[in-house]
Amino acid sequence: MALEDRLLELAAEIPPLDAAAAEEARRRQLWLTKPPGSLGRLEEVGAWLAGMAGRCPPPVPESPAVVVCAGDHGVLERGVSPWPQAVTAAMVSTFCTGGAAVNAIAKTVGARVSVLDVGVAGELERHPLLRAAKVRRGTDDLSRGPAMSREEAARAVMAGAGVAEELVESGGVDLLVTGDMGIGNTTPAAALISAFTGHPPEETTGRGTGIDDQTLELKLNVVEETLELHVPNPEDPLGVLAQIGGLEHAAIVGVILTGAVYSIPVILDGVVSDSAALVARALAPHSAGYVVAGHRSTEPGARISLQSLDVRPLLDLDMRLGEGTGGLLAVPLVQAAARTLKEMAMLEEIGFG
Amino acid sequence: MALEDRLLELAAEIPPLDAAAAEEARRRQLWLTKPPGSLGRLEEVGAWLAGMAGRCPPPVPESPAVVVCAGDHGVLERGVSPWPQAVTAAMVSTFCTGGAAVNAIAKTVGARVSVLDVGVAGELERHPLLRAAKVRRGTDDLSRGPAMSREEAARAVMAGAGVAEELVESGGVDLLVTGDMGIGNTTPAAALISAFTGHPPEETTGRGTGIDDQTLELKLNVVEETLELHVPNPEDPLGVLAQIGGLEHAAIVGVILTGAVYSIPVILDGVVSDSAALVARALAPHSAGYVVAGHRSTEPGARISLQSLDVRPLLDLDMRLGEGTGGLLAVPLVQAAARTLKEMAMLEEIGFG
Repeated sequence: MALEDRLLELAAEIPPLDAAAAEEARRRQLWLTKPPGSLGRLEEVGAWLAGMAGRCPPPVPESPAVVVCAGDHGVLERGVSPWPQAVTAAMVSTFCTGGAAVNAIAKTVGARVSVLDVGVAGELERHPLLRAAKVRRGTDDLSRGPAMSREEAARAVMAGAGVAEELVESGGVDLLVTGDMGIGNTTPAAALISAFTGHPPEETTGRGTGIDDQTLELKLNVVEETLELHVPNPEDPLGVLAQIGGLEHAAIVGVILTGAVYSIPVILDGVVSDSAALVARALAPHSAGYVVAGHRSTEPGARISLQSLDVRPLLDLDMRLGEGTGGLLAVPLVQAAARTLKEMAMLEEIGFG
Repeated sequence: MALEDRLLELAAEIPPLDAAAAEEARRRQLWLTKPPGSLGRLEEVGAWLAGMAGRCPPPVPESPAVVVCAGDHGVLERGVSPWPQAVTAAMVSTFCTGGAAVNAIAKTVGARVSVLDVGVAGELERHPLLRAAKVRRGTDDLSRGPAMSREEAARAVMAGAGVAEELVESGGVDLLVTGDMGIGNTTPAAALISAFTGHPPEETTGRGTGIDDQTLELKLNVVEETLELHVPNPEDPLGVLAQIGGLEHAAIVGVILTGAVYSIPVILDGVVSDSAALVARALAPHSAGYVVAGHRSTEPGARISLQSLDVRPLLDLDMRLGEGTGGLLAVPLVQAAARTLKEMAMLEEIGFG
């Protein structure tokens, strides 16, 4: 079967949420040993987990993993970031040796770290944490032509799907967090968010990990030129991903679709993950039911994506690092939502039902 | 030594934060393997932990504990809550048997639960998790006279201090979370917050765990009458606590002071803890440097207290349960702040310093 057909088949496998199980969770919340509604947003998340699992109470996710998808970007030539491209490979190596923020935070919340190279320009040494699935050495400059071919985009999606599938099938992972690494990758994220939400580039383009006013203006021009050049058609999500996306954005689409196929929660990290969730939803509308926003990145496109996806972020800590860091911090919140729903006694058991 | 003198001695032992260590943390953040500032509020918390520990990087808190302080309230007679007083004792038993929200959330974040009875009206069975230090069987109605004597308030503070001291000294606890249980206890919390911040009762009085408009109006009248009756003097914090506080509020003051004496972080839960932090600050100004707001309770007095304490809450999840639940959810955030600061590699180690 052609790769693109396999991708569409994957997307078609995603079940809708089970509204009855979610409703049962909402009813159950009323009779647990607490005043109704007093757990606030945890109650919402609990109902969502029940809808996803198709039963109430839902299982408590005990084995979280973050998949950090990495790639490079031809558009970096345009000067959209002050960081050199070699930082991508250096950070991927740092993820493997445990010295990055994602490692420290994953350790804190008991998550394993899996790193996926779908498009890093530089050479990477083999490492047990690193899945080597390089589709190509970075994208082409999306402001001057397609970032990659349609076939390459599909391969990157399937590489992300493959890692997620292996984590779930062989690793017992029951909660996925999406992460990204790629110098320059908020430029394709902004372009994707504009393409799928209709918001203009001046609303979706931000300072990424931190650029000055001049670079921001240049970046905005690049995103505008990109959209004028390609006139992306959101009805053809894979085509849009190939034209104006990134390899790690594509891989994250695969992680999201796979989490949804297995009916497990997928916690989004920052703006790159948020843009990938928009692509995933365009490919498979039901996939949007399986994503939760771990946090609100300071990047303006994050807010717009999350509004469009109709998800409220759990955390708002002014973070803008990527790597999966903000998503990982929300893992205990999702676990607590499931555990309260499952393990709390009922009011009648203590004599007040 | 008289009890009140012991309390003042405890308060006097609290060291100021170490500004140099905090500044060193801020400098270190600039050279870790991430763009400067990209960890957002985690960087703030990291610097605060360094200031508290007096060294950079600070230790990573590995042994958190929540102290749930419980008491009853004579003011309940006035009808300020729809829940019967017996719920306090029933919930304390539920904390011991593990069926409450605080248990599920503590398990999620790896915290131990310690329950302190300083003033539950009902009889409680012995249990390994329960410290029995009943000062009296609930307070008197603070709207008609003092809630308790000055001596009783001091005893309740020292009971909280004692539990916290034992957890730190014998239990190796290095991070304290404050929790509360007491039907009616948001009424004294509102009175305390008005007394220490000067905000009028209509700004500090809320729906607690959920009351209707009519009960809210009655509750507001009760808080107003209470302040008119006692004219509390914020220069005499122990006197104010005795007049218009609660036994669990007093015990939480002791937990906060003790955490500060040991220079370990104290995560505040909701409005009852927030009101206790105001009392603690009035007794010992340096204590305010050791508290972090785990979350913003929906109770209006919480926002006012946190503004007055000049702390921004880490979470905002529309919670209003108490027990320590919202504070516990912030434990991984504090741990992650310390761990990133301690364990991340430096940019120069990966060739970009």
